[in-house]
Amino acid sequence: MRTGIWLIGARGSVAVTATVGALALRARLVEPTGCVTESPALAPLLAAAGLAGWSDLVIGGHDVVPTPVLKKAEALGAAGVVPARLVAALAAELTAHEDDLRALPAGAAQADTAGLIAADVTAFRERHALDSVAVINVSTTEPAPPPHPAHADLASLRSALIREPVLPPSALAAYAAFSAGCGYVDFTPSTGARLPALHELALANGVPYAGNDGKTGETLVKSVLAPMFALRNLRVNTWSGINLLGGGDGANLADPAANAAKVASKQRVLSDVLGYQPQGTSRIDYVEDIGDFKTAWDLITFSGFLGTGMRVEFTWHGCDSALAAPLVLDLGRLTAAAQLAGRAGPLPELAFFFKDPLGSSSAGLTEQWTTLVDFARGLST
Amino acid sequence: MRTGIWLIGARGSVAVTATVGALALRARLVEPTGCVTESPALAPLLAAAGLAGWSDLVIGGHDVVPTPVLKKAEALGAAGVVPARLVAALAAELTAHEDDLRALPAGAAQADTAGLIAADVTAFRERHALDSVAVINVSTTEPAPPPHPAHADLASLRSALIREPVLPPSALAAYAAFSAGCGYVDFTPSTGARLPALHELALANGVPYAGNDGKTGETLVKSVLAPMFALRNLRVNTWSGINLLGGGDGANLADPAANAAKVASKQRVLSDVLGYQPQGTSRIDYVEDIGDFKTAWDLITFSGFLGTGMRVEFTWHGCDSALAAPLVLDLGRLTAAAQLAGRAGPLPELAFFFKDPLGSSSAGLTEQWTTLVDFARGLST
Amino acid sequence: MRTGIWLIGARGSVAVTATVGALALRARLVEPTGCVTESPALAPLLAAAGLAGWSDLVIGGHDVVPTPVLKKAEALGAAGVVPARLVAALAAELTAHEDDLRALPAGAAQADTAGLIAADVTAFRERHALDSVAVINVSTTEPAPPPHPAHADLASLRSALIREPVLPPSALAAYAAFSAGCGYVDFTPSTGARLPALHELALANGVPYAGNDGKTGETLVKSVLAPMFALRNLRVNTWSGINLLGGGDGANLADPAANAAKVASKQRVLSDVLGYQPQGTSRIDYVEDIGDFKTAWDLITFSGFLGTGMRVEFTWHGCDSALAAPLVLDLGRLTAAAQLAGRAGPLPELAFFFKDPLGSSSAGLTEQWTTLVDFARGLST
Amino acid sequence: MRTGIWLIGARGSVAVTATVGALALRARLVEPTGCVTESPALAPLLAAAGLAGWSDLVIGGHDVVPTPVLKKAEALGAAGVVPARLVAALAAELTAHEDDLRALPAGAAQADTAGLIAADVTAFRERHALDSVAVINVSTTEPAPPPHPAHADLASLRSALIREPVLPPSALAAYAAFSAGCGYVDFTPSTGARLPALHELALANGVPYAGNDGKTGETLVKSVLAPMFALRNLRVNTWSGINLLGGGDGANLADPAANAAKVASKQRVLSDVLGYQPQGTSRIDYVEDIGDFKTAWDLITFSGFLGTGMRVEFTWHGCDSALAAPLVLDLGRLTAAAQLAGRAGPLPELAFFFKDPLGSSSAGLTEQWTTLVDFARGLST
Repeated sequence: MRTGIWLIGARGSVAVTATVGALALRARLVEPTGCVTESPALAPLLAAAGLAGWSDLVIGGHDVVPTPVLKKAEALGAAGVVPARLVAALAAELTAHEDDLRALPAGAAQADTAGLIAADVTAFRERHALDSVAVINVSTTEPAPPPHPAHADLASLRSALIREPVLPPSALAAYAAFSAGCGYVDFTPSTGARLPALHELALANGVPYAGNDGKTGETLVKSVLAPMFALRNLRVNTWSGINLLGGGDGANLADPAANAAKVASKQRVLSDVLGYQPQGTSRIDYVEDIGDFKTAWDLITFSGFLGTGMRVEFTWHGCDSALAAPLVLDLGRLTAAAQLAGRAGPLPELAFFFKDPLGSSSAGLTEQWTTLVDFARGLST
Repeated sequence: MRTGIWLIGARGSVAVTATVGALALRARLVEPTGCVTESPALAPLLAAAGLAGWSDLVIGGHDVVPTPVLKKAEALGAAGVVPARLVAALAAELTAHEDDLRALPAGAAQADTAGLIAADVTAFRERHALDSVAVINVSTTEPAPPPHPAHADLASLRSALIREPVLPPSALAAYAAFSAGCGYVDFTPSTGARLPALHELALANGVPYAGNDGKTGETLVKSVLAPMFALRNLRVNTWSGINLLGGGDGANLADPAANAAKVASKQRVLSDVLGYQPQGTSRIDYVEDIGDFKTAWDLITFSGFLGTGMRVEFTWHGCDSALAAPLVLDLGRLTAAAQLAGRAGPLPELAFFFKDPLGSSSAGLTEQWTTLVDFARGLST
Repeated sequence: MRTGIWLIGARGSVAVTATVGALALRARLVEPTGCVTESPALAPLLAAAGLAGWSDLVIGGHDVVPTPVLKKAEALGAAGVVPARLVAALAAELTAHEDDLRALPAGAAQADTAGLIAADVTAFRERHALDSVAVINVSTTEPAPPPHPAHADLASLRSALIREPVLPPSALAAYAAFSAGCGYVDFTPSTGARLPALHELALANGVPYAGNDGKTGETLVKSVLAPMFALRNLRVNTWSGINLLGGGDGANLADPAANAAKVASKQRVLSDVLGYQPQGTSRIDYVEDIGDFKTAWDLITFSGFLGTGMRVEFTWHGCDSALAAPLVLDLGRLTAAAQLAGRAGPLPELAFFFKDPLGSSSAGLTEQWTTLVDFARGLST
Repeated sequence: MRTGIWLIGARGSVAVTATVGALALRARLVEPTGCVTESPALAPLLAAAGLAGWSDLVIGGHDVVPTPVLKKAEALGAAGVVPARLVAALAAELTAHEDDLRALPAGAAQADTAGLIAADVTAFRERHALDSVAVINVSTTEPAPPPHPAHADLASLRSALIREPVLPPSALAAYAAFSAGCGYVDFTPSTGARLPALHELALANGVPYAGNDGKTGETLVKSVLAPMFALRNLRVNTWSGINLLGGGDGANLADPAANAAKVASKQRVLSDVLGYQPQGTSRIDYVEDIGDFKTAWDLITFSGFLGTGMRVEFTWHGCDSALAAPLVLDLGRLTAAAQLAGRAGPLPELAFFFKDPLGSSSAGLTEQWTTLVDFARGLST
């Protein structure tokens, strides 16, 4: 199966890390560490399901900025996000990759813009003779949009898009992807495909979608620690944390509205797993000097037998781009395979990958894993 | 079902905390926080299986020290391990509890000692008209004993016990428990029932056993964090930790031989979950001033996509006695119920409770939970 | 020398902890741990200077709430801030202490209110035949007040106080204290005596003042860690932190304006010591469950030789009231002694005690200590 | 003033980092971050004292291993200890530096070996027309040597050195340095110059010496945090820590005897500053994967007012070589300058740089700084 991944935000840190990695994996320069689809337990099932191999995977995408991918990759190499030697070894491939990138188009009306986006994606699919393409949003986090009546059904949305801007960029990308017959994944906490009108379009066109907000750091730890307390029947009183991060994503999150969207997404796991919301909040602070390696600190206070008070602290020091990139490749391959297997609409079985997953699946990482393995098994039969 | 729990080490911190808790639960003075058998997901299944209610649970035991239980409970109250107000409210019950405690007997030969222990347990069962009694070892950790040919089969063991001391105290207690027709649980990393001769005796007498080494702190966190790395296909390079603790258990672990037994038990989870052993060790240091509230710190370094290095640290500040005590009550109730349901030999389904569980079950906490729920379901049918 | 300490906020946690401590020290029930004036290096100098002994120290004060001191002390005992056994042993003294407490008076105009406050303080001084009284503000943090022309000189202030409310409560207390011939200390980041008109009054009446914002936790650590980097010629790039606290002070700091005043005070030490302001901020979050034992976490990233990046993290888990209370006793005794030694106006030599000290003294703790020792030596000669 | 630094262990991480740095500073490629002698407060005093400028500083040394310096520097560049671009820019200078390195000589008797070492150092001094040379030991830590009567006076030592090996390598290097008329600094916890016979030789030949054990990480933090508790009259109950490190120094410290020497050195600061020894120990564990960036974690528990228990934790994540290297340059320049200023025997004024300083100076970093500034002032007058 030949698969395409079309990235919205294709010149950003996550996208370029994923691109360097995909090229390095194709050239057999690295091991697929961090790629969930290459886990010993999943890989054989997915091979049987015809998941795209590294040589059958092509990446393209849109971006609003013009930074050359090679230049961005070199900057990531200098920052320690990707090995500088890999960037040097893949310089020619990274330059050639420019041919599959496009400036994010803008039309007179949102309907026109969506048409231009869809045309770019369609041309990419045809140029590379791809069986399936997944569009993945890895651009920066948007504020939550104001509600609009046109979000409620597809007919209203279509007529509104001709008249006025009613969709935030992430939702417009989902609209364009579905229109082009592609699956859509939102790796951010933005709206993406989560509108009734878009759900209707996905079903109408027989395409799947997944999201939201890739689970890469502090929330990943939460999704295994919170079940520990629940299974042991311990009462969590406080769960407070702070994330310090620089880089482009950090700068964007200095905007209070985007920050609020992200923070809400980070706390959902606690009430989902525990059945109640402990005190405390999860803060995100932009500190330019921290750069791509985020530091998150969490304090958890809990009560044990006879009410005895205890506590856990953890510090997570991780590179968000390096944690996100292999998941982007995983999600592209899985969504494309799901589409070929005939799936349309939401893919709640991919909850393993997200902070704020679609559907009502469990928020505990291990249950999500079991669901994912079942999903992989289903694809192959 | 009327159930007894007979504690080896009945005047120690864990035992007295469990006793205060059992009395407080019977008197409805507290919620069963930390009792796994009272989790919303397990409690209905176990009620259907006839698990002993709090008013049907009686505690007795042996100890080598004569400290009055009320005095020990008051000391635990002053140290913040149990609420002082509970100790005051239960003073009469704690004094009456002395009637069910015995000095650990010693005979001319180990066979005699075992006979005296079994007689005490049998008298306890008859005095309280109990359907089933589980003997639980909560005394301090022993060094690993030298191997002996008599450990290999029951006939050899029986003749050896008349002649010479061949069993460490924990194994002698298991021998006595099985002889008295009781189940046995080892909450410590000591030998306990883990000898072929004892396994033979358990099967012969139709009694179950479980262990080893209650999973209360740092290892509990390991059992959820290690799967996180495995599921995400991240490579753990280093997992190093240190446990600082005072109290009686801490003092005992200052003995290098006991320390070695405990440390080995603490690292097993990593190789079991990850399939390889990361670098690093888990240290245990005795610091008298730390008292009952242990502090453990762990550093985990790991490689992600393209080999990028990242790290997590956690600090666990917990009260071992308060974490262990509800599990002791859980294990007593579950083992007694298993015996009445006809189970004999090892109970690998109780792996959820142990650092170094019997049998080959998964080391991941969530899989262990699933197994436990299935076990509970089986008991009730 | 007989000395009085008159506390604004006399029924709050800090004040009651200080009161319990002063009574316990007088009764020789405890050691003076945490009292800087009892350090081996300072105590002989201060004894020579005639510093008030524990039996010559009397506490009184104002508060807006009517909670009985004994009841508050019992609550502090239950929370582990003070030993419950001390509260029980001092119950009679704590009840008798009510005789020296007054409701915070309010007049028709601020001039009237100040007169009533001054009258209460004067009556306290005469009733106990005190040589000197220091008024200390330990009430909750105020927002920064709007500027007002009447703050600029004493004559303007006096006429304005008759007409309209121009002073925040902390400054009105300073005005009243100075009017009554008493020294004033502000243990909070509020305005206190820091207005030109109040400085003028202090000089006119020959009374000293000190402040602001007692250095009890995270900032105390900053005041020794920041000099470490400076002395080693290492470059601090980021210093970010978060303080999680409950209790009354925490609730007040949930107010953004009060929070801003406190945060500014906490960061001043860095630019003072380092000569530049690193990136990052110091946050304060109210988490009710955390109670009186604050947890603060700080991340410091720095560059060493040839630009190599390194980092330090620390977690401070302290009880603010227990850290503040001995300093309140120290400051009362020292300010009273300074007044008798003829000092008027600001006491920059007390910078050791404050986050945001008056005057231009060094922000490094050890230099502040040297200054304090010289000050003590000066008092005794 | 032209100054030489002769390093024992000249091909190790610390030495090569110092060499790269010295060359980079001479070429004005970097700022002197981490060089204490370049602090704004010290630099003018030292310039007045004629301290060697970067262009007047020459490095040479002995080593037992033959690894080319450029190759070692490239490895340090790959590990992030020094910037790889600096190593590339200085490749020619690093190759030329080989001319000033010698294999550590060995003679028939220790007297012969010392003679050969001294001859190498003397030839280096003459070849570069140096006014003064300081020999600095940066090789790995030795176990404490057995006592020997020949250590007591110079005459006994001289005759013993002909017959039998009585000195550990660090002391033999000091003997050779003094014999060659050079100062000696021990940057390790090894014996170095700390024997009466060597002291006698230093005085006889009019040369100074300094040590021991460069204060680079956890102990540096201790030397500012411990005074904080002392100055605030708080009681430290526990101070326990663990150091995880890889690299050459880490491997050596896996040897229990060397480890013991280092651990003792690390704890001395606490009893020196506090006047008592808190409970707890400081462990050092070798974890190969950790490499050059050491992680140290410390837990401090302390009692405040009325005995209230509190705690601080810190994690230090630093590169030992990058922290040590500028101090090596500082110590070489300062010791050489002290010799030219006529100083002979121990230099206790350099305590600022050491974990276990010679002489009885204060263990608090700020007092040590004051002493260092006075020393610099003395050199210039």
